[in-house]
Amino acid sequence: MALVVKKFGGSSVATTEKILAIAKRILSEKKPDDKIVVVVSAMGDTTDNLINLAEEIDTQPYKAKYSREMDMLLTTGEQISIALLAMAFKKLGQPAISLSGAMAGVRASSVHTKGRILGINPKRVHEELDKGQIVVVAGFQGVDKIGDPVTLGRGGSDTSAVALAGAIKADECEIFTDVDGIYSADPRIVKNAKRMKEITYFEMLEMARLGAGVMQPRSVEMGQYFKIPIHVRSTFTNTPGTIIREDYTVEDKDFEIRGVAHDQKVAKIAVLGVENVPGIAHKLFSALADSNIDVDMIVQSIRNLDKNITDMVFTISLDDLANAKKVVDKVAEEINASTVLVEEDVAKVSIVGAGMLGSPGIAARMFGALANAGINIDIISTSEISVSCLIKGSQLVEAVNSIHDEFFKD
Amino acid sequence: MALVVKKFGGSSVATTEKILAIAKRILSEKKPDDKIVVVVSAMGDTTDNLINLAEEIDTQPYKAKYSREMDMLLTTGEQISIALLAMAFKKLGQPAISLSGAMAGVRASSVHTKGRILGINPKRVHEELDKGQIVVVAGFQGVDKIGDPVTLGRGGSDTSAVALAGAIKADECEIFTDVDGIYSADPRIVKNAKRMKEITYFEMLEMARLGAGVMQPRSVEMGQYFKIPIHVRSTFTNTPGTIIREDYTVEDKDFEIRGVAHDQKVAKIAVLGVENVPGIAHKLFSALADSNIDVDMIVQSIRNLDKNITDMVFTISLDDLANAKKVVDKVAEEINASTVLVEEDVAKVSIVGAGMLGSPGIAARMFGALANAGINIDIISTSEISVSCLIKGSQLVEAVNSIHDEFFKD
Repeated sequence: MALVVKKFGGSSVATTEKILAIAKRILSEKKPDDKIVVVVSAMGDTTDNLINLAEEIDTQPYKAKYSREMDMLLTTGEQISIALLAMAFKKLGQPAISLSGAMAGVRASSVHTKGRILGINPKRVHEELDKGQIVVVAGFQGVDKIGDPVTLGRGGSDTSAVALAGAIKADECEIFTDVDGIYSADPRIVKNAKRMKEITYFEMLEMARLGAGVMQPRSVEMGQYFKIPIHVRSTFTNTPGTIIREDYTVEDKDFEIRGVAHDQKVAKIAVLGVENVPGIAHKLFSALADSNIDVDMIVQSIRNLDKNITDMVFTISLDDLANAKKVVDKVAEEINASTVLVEEDVAKVSIVGAGMLGSPGIAARMFGALANAGINIDIISTSEISVSCLIKGSQLVEAVNSIHDEFFKD
Repeated sequence: MALVVKKFGGSSVATTEKILAIAKRILSEKKPDDKIVVVVSAMGDTTDNLINLAEEIDTQPYKAKYSREMDMLLTTGEQISIALLAMAFKKLGQPAISLSGAMAGVRASSVHTKGRILGINPKRVHEELDKGQIVVVAGFQGVDKIGDPVTLGRGGSDTSAVALAGAIKADECEIFTDVDGIYSADPRIVKNAKRMKEITYFEMLEMARLGAGVMQPRSVEMGQYFKIPIHVRSTFTNTPGTIIREDYTVEDKDFEIRGVAHDQKVAKIAVLGVENVPGIAHKLFSALADSNIDVDMIVQSIRNLDKNITDMVFTISLDDLANAKKVVDKVAEEINASTVLVEEDVAKVSIVGAGMLGSPGIAARMFGALANAGINIDIISTSEISVSCLIKGSQLVEAVNSIHDEFFKD
C-alpha cells in the first residue's frame, strides 16, 4: 500500500476532457490498496476570468482593501475543479470526495492573496481516505483563524500538495507538470541537457533560487522540512521523472555539478564615485530593504585609492528596477555619488552542486569555459554549493551551453 | 436605526455593471445608522454554466451519487457574486464583507441539492454589522453538520434571506424582484390588477399554493415562523411594494377577497365505473402517495345508485402526469374500473381572502361571475380562506378577468 499525494496544475485540468483524462490516468496507476490525495489548481483560464470580473468593479482589484474579497472570489476557481474531478472519479466508478482548503484543514496566515501555510489538520482527509475515497483537495488555498479563505502566494498549489503530504506522512508527493523532470540545464536552451533521477532539496533550492523555474522554493523547503520525497514528473507520460529528496539513493553518473541555472530577469545598478566612509553601504542597502527590494550580487570596488573613492555595483530582479531606481537616485544624492548607471542587458549564469564543496577548481573550469567562448564576466558571486557569473544578456545561451558542455560532455 | 435584510436575485446581479448599480441603490436608501445584510444569488448564467461543465463529465449530473459534488460546484456561483458585490461597496467607500452560507452560520440538512435550513447562528453576521460593515451573504446555501456545503431547494435564496432576518431579529426582509409587489391577480393576464399594500402570511401562502408565482411558500412560512415582515418590491424603482405580515396595519380599501390566483399546470384524471366498496379510494390515493404524487382536488360522484357504481375524479400537477398515469392504470386494473380518462386542457382558478370566513355568499358570487361568462365549472374545492374551480384551460383568461371584475371593480 502506498500513500501518495499527486498534484496537477491548471493546464492539466483546463477542460472537462482533461479532467476525465487525469482521473483515468490516476486510476490506471492505482493499486487496489493505494491511498491517494489529489491536489489541483483552478481550470486553465478560470482565475484570469475571475480577475477580469474583479477588474470590471475596480481597475485595480489588487488594492489592499480588496484583498480579502479577492480571496473569496479566487478560491472558487479551485472549488470548481475539485468538484468536477471528484465527479470524474465517480463517473469511472471510483469513490471520491472533494475538499476545499478549509475542509482539508489547511490553516494559513491571514495575509490575503499572499497567505502562508501555518499547519495542516488532516483529520477529515484521513477519515475520507479510510473510507476508500480518493480525496481531491483544492490547491493554492487555506483558511485563516477566523474561518476566511486565504489564497497562498507563489507556487501555492505545489506548497499545498507537499504540506499535505507532510501532514499525512505520505510516502511521496508527485508534482505533475509539463516537463518530465529536473534537467541539468533548461532543455529549451541546452539541446543535450540531461534529466536527473534525483536531486537533493538543498541543491534544488539553490537551482530554484538561481533561476530554474520548475519548482517554487517554498514547496521544496516544505518537502525538506517534512522529509517528503517530491517526484517531479510529466502529466503526459508514465515515465519516472526526478525525485527531490534528502540524499541520493541511486548511483547517478557522478557529475561534479548537478546543473547549470540561469536567470534573465536581472538588472544591474552601479552607483559610481562614492566616498568610501563607514555606513555608506548600510545606507544604500537598508533603503532598498525598506522598499522590499531584494539585492542579489554585490561588488564594492575601490576605484581610486588616493582619493578613497569607491563604486558600488549590485543586481536586483528586473521587476524591481523602476522602484529601485527611485530609491537609489535619492540615496545617491544624499551620499554625493557622481553617477547612477542602470544596465538591463545582463543575465546570471550559475553552476550548482553539493559535490563542489570538496572539489577546488570547479569554479575555475566554469570561468575557463566562459573565456573560451569569448564571454566577459562582469560580477562573480559564490555560495557553499554554487558559483554565479553576471554576463551580457545577449550572450546567455552561448554561456549556458559552454558551461554545460564543460561539465556534462560524456 | 433600521436592521434590514435585502435580497437580490440572479438577474439583478447578472453583470458587474448591475452589481455596481445595486450597491449604489442600496447606499442611496441607507441612513447612516442602518445595519444592512444583503443576500444575493449567483450571477445570471453562472449556475447554468456550472451545470454545463458538470454535464460534460456526466450527461446526468443530478444523479444521487454526484449530489454532494454538485453542491460543491454550484455554491461557487453565489461565492463569486458576494465577493464582487462586497468589492463594489468598498469601491463606493462603504465598508463591506462577504460571507458564504457556512460563514454566515446557515446550518442546513445534509440532503444535497435539496437542503433545508435547520437554524442559523448569526454570531459572525452580528460581529461584522457591529463593525459598520454591510454584510453580503450567499443565498441558496448552507453548511451541514460535517462542514460540507449544501444548496437549498426551490426558493432557496428567498428562504436564506427570511431565515437570516429572523435569526438577527431584523425589522424587515426586503425581497427585490422584477415585479413591484403582490397583485390582486397576475397583471400579465388582468389589465387592472391592483397592487396590494399588505397581505397576511396566511393569505400569501394560500395564493402561492394556488399558483401565484411571486414568492415560494417555504420563505413565507419562514417569515410567519419568525414574524418577520417580508417586503416584496421592485429592483428597478424605489416605490414601496407589498408587505407580507401577520396582520394588516393600514386601511387598504376593504375588498372582500385578497386576490384571484390561477394555475395552468394542472391535469385531471378520471377513473370511471368503480364499484363503490370501502377501501377503493384508499387504494388509489395511497398508491399515488407512495409514488410521491400530490393529489389536489378530489371528487367522488355516484353514477348509478342501483348498481353502486362510482366515478373518482382528481387533479394533479401536470409535471406528474406521466408517472401518475402509470400508477392509476395499474390500480384501475386491480379495482376493475371500466375506464381511465386523462384531460390536460384544464386550469384552476381560485379566490383567496381571510375576509370570506365571515361572509357567506362570496363563493356564490364567484360561481355567478363564471356563469355569466359562460364558463362551465368541472370541480369545486374549498379551504377556510379560498374557493377553487377547475375549468377548461382555454377559458382561463376570461375566467380570471370575470372573477376579478366581480370583486375588484371600483
